[in-house]
Amino acid sequence: MSLNTFGHLFRVTTWGESHGPALGATVDGCPPNVAIDEGAIQHWLDKRKPGTSKYTTQRREADAVKILSGTFEGNTTGTPVQLMIENTDQRSKDYGDIIEKFRPGHADITYYQKYGNRDYRGGGRSSARETAARVAAGGLARAVLAKLAPQVEITGYMTRMGAHEIDRANFDWDQIEQNPFWTPDAKASETWADYLDCLRKSGSSVGAIIEVTARGVPAGLGAPIYGKLDTDLAAAMMSINAVKGVEIGEGMSAAMLTGELNADEISMGNDGPRYSSNHSGGILGGISTGQDIVIRFAVKPTSSILTTRQTITKSGENTEIITKGRHDPCVGIRAVPVGEAMMACVILDHLLLHRGQIGENQGIIGA
Amino acid sequence: MSLNTFGHLFRVTTWGESHGPALGATVDGCPPNVAIDEGAIQHWLDKRKPGTSKYTTQRREADAVKILSGTFEGNTTGTPVQLMIENTDQRSKDYGDIIEKFRPGHADITYYQKYGNRDYRGGGRSSARETAARVAAGGLARAVLAKLAPQVEITGYMTRMGAHEIDRANFDWDQIEQNPFWTPDAKASETWADYLDCLRKSGSSVGAIIEVTARGVPAGLGAPIYGKLDTDLAAAMMSINAVKGVEIGEGMSAAMLTGELNADEISMGNDGPRYSSNHSGGILGGISTGQDIVIRFAVKPTSSILTTRQTITKSGENTEIITKGRHDPCVGIRAVPVGEAMMACVILDHLLLHRGQIGENQGIIGA
Amino acid sequence: MSLNTFGHLFRVTTWGESHGPALGATVDGCPPNVAIDEGAIQHWLDKRKPGTSKYTTQRREADAVKILSGTFEGNTTGTPVQLMIENTDQRSKDYGDIIEKFRPGHADITYYQKYGNRDYRGGGRSSARETAARVAAGGLARAVLAKLAPQVEITGYMTRMGAHEIDRANFDWDQIEQNPFWTPDAKASETWADYLDCLRKSGSSVGAIIEVTARGVPAGLGAPIYGKLDTDLAAAMMSINAVKGVEIGEGMSAAMLTGELNADEISMGNDGPRYSSNHSGGILGGISTGQDIVIRFAVKPTSSILTTRQTITKSGENTEIITKGRHDPCVGIRAVPVGEAMMACVILDHLLLHRGQIGENQGIIGA
Amino acid sequence: MSLNTFGHLFRVTTWGESHGPALGATVDGCPPNVAIDEGAIQHWLDKRKPGTSKYTTQRREADAVKILSGTFEGNTTGTPVQLMIENTDQRSKDYGDIIEKFRPGHADITYYQKYGNRDYRGGGRSSARETAARVAAGGLARAVLAKLAPQVEITGYMTRMGAHEIDRANFDWDQIEQNPFWTPDAKASETWADYLDCLRKSGSSVGAIIEVTARGVPAGLGAPIYGKLDTDLAAAMMSINAVKGVEIGEGMSAAMLTGELNADEISMGNDGPRYSSNHSGGILGGISTGQDIVIRFAVKPTSSILTTRQTITKSGENTEIITKGRHDPCVGIRAVPVGEAMMACVILDHLLLHRGQIGENQGIIGA
Repeated sequence: MSLNTFGHLFRVTTWGESHGPALGATVDGCPPNVAIDEGAIQHWLDKRKPGTSKYTTQRREADAVKILSGTFEGNTTGTPVQLMIENTDQRSKDYGDIIEKFRPGHADITYYQKYGNRDYRGGGRSSARETAARVAAGGLARAVLAKLAPQVEITGYMTRMGAHEIDRANFDWDQIEQNPFWTPDAKASETWADYLDCLRKSGSSVGAIIEVTARGVPAGLGAPIYGKLDTDLAAAMMSINAVKGVEIGEGMSAAMLTGELNADEISMGNDGPRYSSNHSGGILGGISTGQDIVIRFAVKPTSSILTTRQTITKSGENTEIITKGRHDPCVGIRAVPVGEAMMACVILDHLLLHRGQIGENQGIIGA
Repeated sequence: MSLNTFGHLFRVTTWGESHGPALGATVDGCPPNVAIDEGAIQHWLDKRKPGTSKYTTQRREADAVKILSGTFEGNTTGTPVQLMIENTDQRSKDYGDIIEKFRPGHADITYYQKYGNRDYRGGGRSSARETAARVAAGGLARAVLAKLAPQVEITGYMTRMGAHEIDRANFDWDQIEQNPFWTPDAKASETWADYLDCLRKSGSSVGAIIEVTARGVPAGLGAPIYGKLDTDLAAAMMSINAVKGVEIGEGMSAAMLTGELNADEISMGNDGPRYSSNHSGGILGGISTGQDIVIRFAVKPTSSILTTRQTITKSGENTEIITKGRHDPCVGIRAVPVGEAMMACVILDHLLLHRGQIGENQGIIGA
Repeated sequence: MSLNTFGHLFRVTTWGESHGPALGATVDGCPPNVAIDEGAIQHWLDKRKPGTSKYTTQRREADAVKILSGTFEGNTTGTPVQLMIENTDQRSKDYGDIIEKFRPGHADITYYQKYGNRDYRGGGRSSARETAARVAAGGLARAVLAKLAPQVEITGYMTRMGAHEIDRANFDWDQIEQNPFWTPDAKASETWADYLDCLRKSGSSVGAIIEVTARGVPAGLGAPIYGKLDTDLAAAMMSINAVKGVEIGEGMSAAMLTGELNADEISMGNDGPRYSSNHSGGILGGISTGQDIVIRFAVKPTSSILTTRQTITKSGENTEIITKGRHDPCVGIRAVPVGEAMMACVILDHLLLHRGQIGENQGIIGA
Repeated sequence: MSLNTFGHLFRVTTWGESHGPALGATVDGCPPNVAIDEGAIQHWLDKRKPGTSKYTTQRREADAVKILSGTFEGNTTGTPVQLMIENTDQRSKDYGDIIEKFRPGHADITYYQKYGNRDYRGGGRSSARETAARVAAGGLARAVLAKLAPQVEITGYMTRMGAHEIDRANFDWDQIEQNPFWTPDAKASETWADYLDCLRKSGSSVGAIIEVTARGVPAGLGAPIYGKLDTDLAAAMMSINAVKGVEIGEGMSAAMLTGELNADEISMGNDGPRYSSNHSGGILGGISTGQDIVIRFAVKPTSSILTTRQTITKSGENTEIITKGRHDPCVGIRAVPVGEAMMACVILDHLLLHRGQIGENQGIIGA
C-alpha cells in the first residue's frame, strides 16, 4: 500500500498523467469467474466524465476504458486486470506562463520541490484525471461485490455546496440520479443550480461535501488496529484530489456530544442486532456493525479561477497568475462517483481480508 | 500496512490486550545509531498515563516501558526495536454482566461478530490501552527525528471539549503544558475544568477535538496517490480509538469556501516560498509545502457512562446495562499524546521514504 | 514483507538479539478460535534447543516461550500473538578480540558496514538464535493448520552431511525421530555419528542438506507471479541463517534432464489427478498440484572453528583470529525444525490467501 | 510483494497474458530525473525476443515497448512508469485438444484447479511471455542504476546445458555476447550448438543453469531477516517460469564443505576489505560484502515436446497428448536476460531501501 497502490488483497495501482498517452489501473487480487466487460465499467466512467452538464469542465474526454488483461471470454480469470483509458485530448497546446509559474493551491510547487521536475501539462500526475482510473477499478469492484455480496448497495451524493446544505428532511434516494449535483434533496438542487451558475459566470469556484453510504454490508468487516474499516475508508477518501476532511457517522460533531447522546442502543431484531440510531456510521472498533456505513468528505474549491493571484516562478521571482481555460466551478460534483468507487474497493478488499483470516463469520448472536 | 501494522519503512506493529501480561510495539526499519533509552520513551508515556489528574481514569498503571531489542550501548542498531509495557493492573476481578452483555458504543459486539470470541476483560484488544504502545513507538520516532530533522517540532492540543471551543485569539503555545487539558487557551482551561467536573460527577462523558501541528517539516515529503502525506496522516489518526473525523488545514470547512478564499498565495522569502495563509494545512497534492502541518481529529465521548442503556446479550436477549467503574469523562485528553505520536511516526516514515526514492530534495526554487 | 517480516496474511515479524533480554515473534493475522498454549509451542522449540546431544552447541538456553497476547482462555482471538523467549544465558562475558576483529564467514563485517555499529555479543541480530522465534511462530502455524487443514503433515530431515548423502532406498519416515541427525536413513545416521564426532574433536565444522516435505497440501495454493508458492518457500528457506541454496522438486538437477524425463505424466485417480512422478516437487506454475511439496536447502558449515584465520580489525589492520567457545559442528542439524517452521508458515499463509481471493477451490476436475 | 508485485520501494507489478491485447509492467517508486526512452528499454527486450536464432521459438513477436506514463521530456518524473508491450501474434488459431487436455509439466492443471477457469491460448498468464514485462522493468532499473551506482555491472550467462557444463578455466566475459547461448566458454558454445540441434530436431528439450553476476555492488545492501539481499534474489529468480533451484555463491555445494574451506578470509586492501575467495557469493548475513554477487538458477526443460504423453481432460478422463507447434528446445537461453533483469531490480530496490533507512553507509572500516 505504498505510493500509488491501495488495498490489501484487492490491490489497485493507478498510473498515468493527464496529458500522457494513457492512464489506468492495474488491479491485482481480483477474484476469478466474475462476469465483466468494458461496458459495465464504462457505465461508471460516464458518470464521472467531464462535460456532461454546464456545471463541469468542458474538456472533452471520451474516457473509454479498455480491458487489456485478466479476463477471458467475459469473466475475470484471477490474474491482474489492466484497465486502460487513452487520453484523447492530449494535444500540445499553449501552456503560457504555467510553465514557469506555480499556481496557488495546486500541487505544482510541491511536486517540483519533491521531484525536481515539472510536467506542466494540465497537472500531470496530480490532475484529477487520475480519478478516472479509480472509477474504473471501482466498477470492477462493484462487479465482484455483485457476485459475492449482492445485497451491498453503494451510493454517493452531495450534501453541501459552499454555503448551502441539504435539508435531511427532504432526503430522497430516488432524487440522486435526477439532478446534475447528485443531491438527494430536490429543493437544494434548484438553489444550487442558480448559485453555481452565478459562481461559474464570475469565474469563481466553490467547495462541497460528499456523503457515501454503503447499505447491506455484513457485520464483521474490518480489523484492529491499522487495518480498521474506518481507517481504510478515511485513507481512501483522503487520497482523492482536493479532499481536506473525512468523517465517519457523527464525524467531527461527535466532539460535541455526551456519551448518552452518542452511543447507539442495541436491541434484538429478527435477524440480528438492531440499533436505535447510527451515530457510529456503521463502524465500532474498526469493524462493521451491519448498519449503513456512512462516510463524508469535504472537497475544496478548485484553485483554477479567473481572479489574479500572487505567486512565484521556478526561479524564485514574485509574480502574478491568472488561470484561464476550462474549469470545474464545483469539482465536488465529479467527486461523487470517485467516492463511490473508493467505497466499493475498500468494502470488497475487507470482504476478501475477512474471508482470508476468518472464513465464515463466527460470532452469530443468538445462535 | 495490514491489520496491526502501520508505516512504510518505519513500520510499527502493536500487540497486546488491556488485561493480558503485557502489550507493546515492534518497530522495524528504525535508522541505526540514534541515542535512545527507556527514560526518553517513558517521558511520553507519562504524558498519556491514566490517573495524572482527576479528569482521567483512576486506573493505576505504571506504564513502564522496557526496550527488549534493537539497541546496544544506548543506541539503536538498525534491527527491530521491541518496546514492551507490562500490565500491572491485570488482576482478575468481577466483570459482572459485561461477560454476557454488549456495551452500546463499544467494540464488544463487532469483535464478537467478527471473531466469534470475546475477551471481556476491559475491552481486550479494542481497549484504549493499546495506544500506550503507539506512544512508545512515537517516542522512538521523535528520537530519530531529533537526529535526522532536529527542526521538526510536534505539538498536540485540545481545541474543543463538548460544547466549548477555544478562542484562537488566546492561542499560546506555552499554555499547552500548563493545564490538564493540553489546551493553548488559558481561559478555556478554566471553563473546561468546571464543565468537566460537572460531567464527571454526573457519570457522563463528552467528546473533544484535538489538533496536532508539526512545525519545521521540510517541503517535499509525501507522494502520489495513496502514499500521500495527508492520506497517511488521516489513516494514522482515524486508527486511534474513538476517532470519528479527521481534518487537514481548513478541513470540512473547505467545502464552504470559494477558490479565492481557499488558495494560499505564494511569495518568495529569504529561504524559500512563503504563503499568505495556510488553508492547505501544509500539504498540497499530498506533499508537504514547508508550512506547518495541521491536522485535527474528533474523539467521541466514551460510552462507559453511569446511565442505564438498552442492549442485548450474546444469546440475543434484550436487556439493560450500566457501565460501572473507573472511566474517563473526556478520553480526548489522553488522546493528545497519542495524536502527537502518530504524527511523529508518519513524518519520520515519509522522511525515510523520501530519502529512499529521491535522496536529497531536488527542486530548489530560485536555485 | 520487508526487513524483519514475512508472510502476506499470516505475518510473522521476528525481533531480538542473541544476548539481549529476550527475542520473539509478533504474529499478525492469525485466525481466531484455534486452541493453543505454551506447551504446544514449546514442543517444537525443544526440538531446536541447543545442548540436546553432543552434536549441537553446549550453550544452555531454556528457550521457554511465553504467550504475551492474542489468546484468551486457551484459544487465539484473531489479534496479534506475541511469542517471547527470554535469553537466560545473556550474562556478560569476555568477548576477547571479537570486539575489534571480524570473524571470516560471519555477518560481523557486513552488519558493521551497513549499520555502522556492532553488537559483538554472540552475533547480535545475525545469530542463529533468531531462528527460535521462527520455530515458535511455526508452532502456532501448525496449530492453525491442524484445525483448517488437518491432513497436512510437515516433516524435515537431513539428506546430506558434508561428504555423506543418504541412500534413498533406505528412506524410512519412522527413522527420522530416532537419531540425533533427523535422518530417514538409519545406516547414514551411524556413519554420520562417527564422521561428526571426528570433525567436532578437531574443532572443524561441516555443511548439510535439509529436505522438508509437506504431505496433504491441497491443489490450488499459490499464485502468479511473485506470490508463487515456490517463490515464497524459496524466500522462506533462503532467509534462514547460513542457507546458500534452495531447490524445489528436481531442483538444480532439472537442468540436466530432457523434457521427456522431467514432466510428470498425469492420470485420473479416485479422488483427483495422479502423477507418475514428482519432478515438480508438488508445484507447477507456482501453484500446488496436490502432490507432496518437496523443498531442499543447503546449510553452510559454521565459520566458528578452531583453526587460525586471516582477518582484519575495525580500524583496518590485518590480523588473525581463532573463534573459541561452544559451537555447532553441523548447524544443519538444528536447521531441521527451522525449515519445518518456515514450511508451516508459508503453507498456512497461502491457505489464507487462497481463501481470501478465491473462497473455495473452483476447478474440480471431473466434476 | 503479493501476487503479481515484487520489490519494496522499486515496485514492479506485471500484468497480461500471452494472447491478450497486451502485457506490461507497472513500476512504482522509480527515482525521478533519470534519462530513459523506449529505445533504451527495447535494447534489453531484443535480447530476450524469440526467433533471434534457430535455438529459440520461432514465434514472431516484435516485443515493442511503449512508455505510457511516468516520464516527461525524456526523464522519469518519479510517478508510476507504465511499460506496455502489445501482443502482435495474438490471432485466434486452432488450439486443438489443448482446450480440454492438461499438458504434463505445465501450469494448465494447477491454474484450472485454483481459479476454475482456463485461458488455453498459449498458457495465458503462466506463459513465459510474462517475462518480457520483467525485462522491460529491468531495463528501467538498469537506467536508474547507471545514474545512482554507475559502477554496478550485471551480466548473466549460461553455465550448463543439460549434460554439458562449462569449463571455468575457459571463462571469458567477452565471449558471452558472441554466441547464441550467452556462455562465457567459447568451446562449450560449439559443443552445445551440436547438442541442441540434435535435441531440437528430435522434438525434445533440455534444462540449463544460468549464472548472474553483479559486479561493483557496494557493501551494506540488504537487511535482516526476511529482507535479506539473498532472500530477495532467491525469490526473484525462483519467480521466473520453469526455475526449480537457486544458489548463492557456493550454493548447494556448501553442504559438502568444512568450515575451513568455506569461510572467505579477509585482508585489508587499498580501499576496503579484500577476500581470499568468494564462497559467500558476495553476501554475508543477508548483506552485500562488496565482492561480486553471484547467483545461479536451474531452468527445467520445457514440457512442450513432440513425444506422446499420458494426461487427463477437464472432465477427468485419461488420454494422451502431444504438444505440437513452435517451441524452445532450451528455454534457459531466453532466461538469461530475465535473470539479469531480476538482479537489476533487486539491487536497485535494496539501494533505495538502504538509502531510506540508513542514508549514507556508516561503517567505514579503517576510517
